[in-house]
Amino acid sequence: MEETEMTNEEKMKSAFKSGAAFEVGEPNPYGEYFTGQSYLKMLEKDKDLGAINVTFEPGCRNFWHIHHGRNQILLCVAGEGWYQEEGKPAQLLKPGDVVNIPTEVKHWHGATKNSWFSHIVPGVDDPSATVTWCEPVTDEEYDKLEDQR
Amino acid sequence: MEETEMTNEEKMKSAFKSGAAFEVGEPNPYGEYFTGQSYLKMLEKDKDLGAINVTFEPGCRNFWHIHHGRNQILLCVAGEGWYQEEGKPAQLLKPGDVVNIPTEVKHWHGATKNSWFSHIVPGVDDPSATVTWCEPVTDEEYDKLEDQR
Repeated sequence: MEETEMTNEEKMKSAFKSGAAFEVGEPNPYGEYFTGQSYLKMLEKDKDLGAINVTFEPGCRNFWHIHHGRNQILLCVAGEGWYQEEGKPAQLLKPGDVVNIPTEVKHWHGATKNSWFSHIVPGVDDPSATVTWCEPVTDEEYDKLEDQR
Repeated sequence: MEETEMTNEEKMKSAFKSGAAFEVGEPNPYGEYFTGQSYLKMLEKDKDLGAINVTFEPGCRNFWHIHHGRNQILLCVAGEGWYQEEGKPAQLLKPGDVVNIPTEVKHWHGATKNSWFSHIVPGVDDPSATVTWCEPVTDEEYDKLEDQR
């Protein structure tokens, strides 16, 4: 049998996938607004209603951003992550946690430093829903959270 | 310390909840269309978009029914269940499985005989979405599935 060599990154992704129920998908096409590697899987799309699984590698998080026109719901399904609104303490997220992100609130979300993290985002087509992407979460801001755990 | 006596049913619900990530909620207000005990938890509602967790005790399933106007998406999050469309073999469901139930197709879903089962249903307010409830899934139909596993 021919052996296929896996990189460390592939091995880690494979290990996470074997424990995570929902499909991880492909590298996130919106990766330019993320620090580190993330993945995206459209689980299902039914007319205007869909559900997307977003997976973050350890240390990966999205940039500060603001939703306009429509809240965003996060259904945490695997691993361990962070959610932080500007000016507030970060919340540690685990499977089963549900976050309702209000409109017009600057925030970010992502994995913890040592864990992968996946959340499902149910979504509905809504032309009034837009996002303003802001600056990255600095290593200093991010590392501080881990120190405070 | 005062001891509180739990019924067997409460003990089983408690055991399942300790392993299931998402909240199980309260007895299902639509229970009249279900065989056995089910639970319902509105996880979040954001304007017209919501996500509901439905949990079935072992052996519990809903009646045959038909969705009109809008498909229904099931995101399986805990335990083991069945989904069956009329005239087709039933599908065994596990966490991570996603089902897109077409409109106008008679079907049912529920737990397997020996496992609890939870699925999340992302939903959007849609006045055109209605349900026709039909007859219960008979014990004969249900037990046959288990025999064929």
